[in-house]
Amino acid sequence: MARWQSGSRERLAASALRLFASQGFESTTVAEIAADAGLTERTFFRYYADKPEVLFAGQDEFEGLFLDGVEESTSTQPMELMASALDHAAAFFADERRAWSRSRQVVVTGNVALQERELHKMSGLASSLTSAFAERDIDPNIAALAAEATVSVFRRSFAAWIAAGESRPFADIQRGVLSQLQALLAPS
Amino acid sequence: MARWQSGSRERLAASALRLFASQGFESTTVAEIAADAGLTERTFFRYYADKPEVLFAGQDEFEGLFLDGVEESTSTQPMELMASALDHAAAFFADERRAWSRSRQVVVTGNVALQERELHKMSGLASSLTSAFAERDIDPNIAALAAEATVSVFRRSFAAWIAAGESRPFADIQRGVLSQLQALLAPS
Repeated sequence: MARWQSGSRERLAASALRLFASQGFESTTVAEIAADAGLTERTFFRYYADKPEVLFAGQDEFEGLFLDGVEESTSTQPMELMASALDHAAAFFADERRAWSRSRQVVVTGNVALQERELHKMSGLASSLTSAFAERDIDPNIAALAAEATVSVFRRSFAAWIAAGESRPFADIQRGVLSQLQALLAPS
Repeated sequence: MARWQSGSRERLAASALRLFASQGFESTTVAEIAADAGLTERTFFRYYADKPEVLFAGQDEFEGLFLDGVEESTSTQPMELMASALDHAAAFFADERRAWSRSRQVVVTGNVALQERELHKMSGLASSLTSAFAERDIDPNIAALAAEATVSVFRRSFAAWIAAGESRPFADIQRGVLSQLQALLAPS
């Protein structure tokens, strides 16, 4: 994803998203994106392997933040590791990114192949978190449940963060959603 | 999925799974499946729209069981609705199905397109459950969290149920996994 400076990479990302939104993801060519950004196709491919990559770049960094959160906690309690992973990941979703994320979501939701890739990305995140939790001597089944719960809290928080009119910071929303999940599952 | 009688449908499913396992999903043709079952291709297509359908047939019934579970509970508590949905769905996974499910899982895990379809199936289930919970006047965010937790408990239970040497009934495993998730998220 764009890094909010005005380099070629960011101009390409902004042009791509504008074109995807106005004329559709499928109908937009790399040539049009490059032209809109005042750059060449060759430059486009220096930054992005293909057209969908504009929407999915930054995935390693995104996943890395969750894993850093696990890494930097000394706890062996799944709940504390989950909370640490979520708190670290929130850094990816600065307020300056919110407008981009809103537009990106509209494009992804409108295209089945992009939806599948998004599902795949979340599934990959759950697998990575399962491994990270299991390395803390957490039972593999519990690790997988904790990883899926982490991804679920993240996804619900993301949906809330990009909702129209929402202005709370990502981290605050996420702590609220984690509490909601805890309350929901509290034994009666 | 097969219904464990010895009709054409079941013979086709058994032949397909055997061939997928021995020579790979991609390398197996519908003609080979039909021949192995002693039937014609025409008969195959009377039961299944295409080759992957052998592995994904029964999906409506599967999803319907979860939704019946919500329907048949009079509760407005998300936890009780979740438990009811899970208990109903367990009926789909009778012990006679375990061997089929184990073989099917090996085939699905070995093919990226089938994995994506499986993810998509689970995502569709989560959406349906979100709607069903929301119809009980549960807040939409809570409904979505509850739906994703339900799917997560189901998926972990399924993984345990098909593990080598596991012989406990599906419903028992699932109640255990739901309790594990509750314990995991219990506020400290």
